[in-house]
Amino acid sequence: MSQFIDVHTGMKNLTVQDLKREHDQDTALEREYGVHFIKAWGDPASGKVFCLSEGPNKQAVLEVHRKAGHPTDEIYEVPLSVE
Amino acid sequence: MSQFIDVHTGMKNLTVQDLKREHDQDTALEREYGVHFIKAWGDPASGKVFCLSEGPNKQAVLEVHRKAGHPTDEIYEVPLSVE
Repeated sequence: MSQFIDVHTGMKNLTVQDLKREHDQDTALEREYGVHFIKAWGDPASGKVFCLSEGPNKQAVLEVHRKAGHPTDEIYEVPLSVE
Repeated sequence: MSQFIDVHTGMKNLTVQDLKREHDQDTALEREYGVHFIKAWGDPASGKVFCLSEGPNKQAVLEVHRKAGHPTDEIYEVPLSVE
């Protein structure tokens, strides 16, 4: 399992209810793909959303997003993390 | 206090030791600016690094990164988060 950050654009004026609904759509679908969406952050001013997930590969993560109706092509595998 | 995600590029072949060292430089400087760097994720393949922080405004976060020697201009305020 690897961790990933993917990036969505075009979500200006997003509310936390919108973000929760989209995230719940991901988590409802994710198990079939061996993916888990850990957390998502949104910026309503720019319309950017960042999702942190873990899964077998980028394609599995992107496929969950596609099936959930909010596809993106921008994703990074992030094997390194510090806090 | 708000939360922010900023993005660095050009860090290909980054190691976890590199990321830890850069993150420690931020956390050594952050208090003076009222900022806290919560976590950072790195992708050595693309050279992207994502930092999650909290602080009073974007400028304070970027100033810590600048003083630490790894400036960036790409930052988003992320008032929304779900998990």
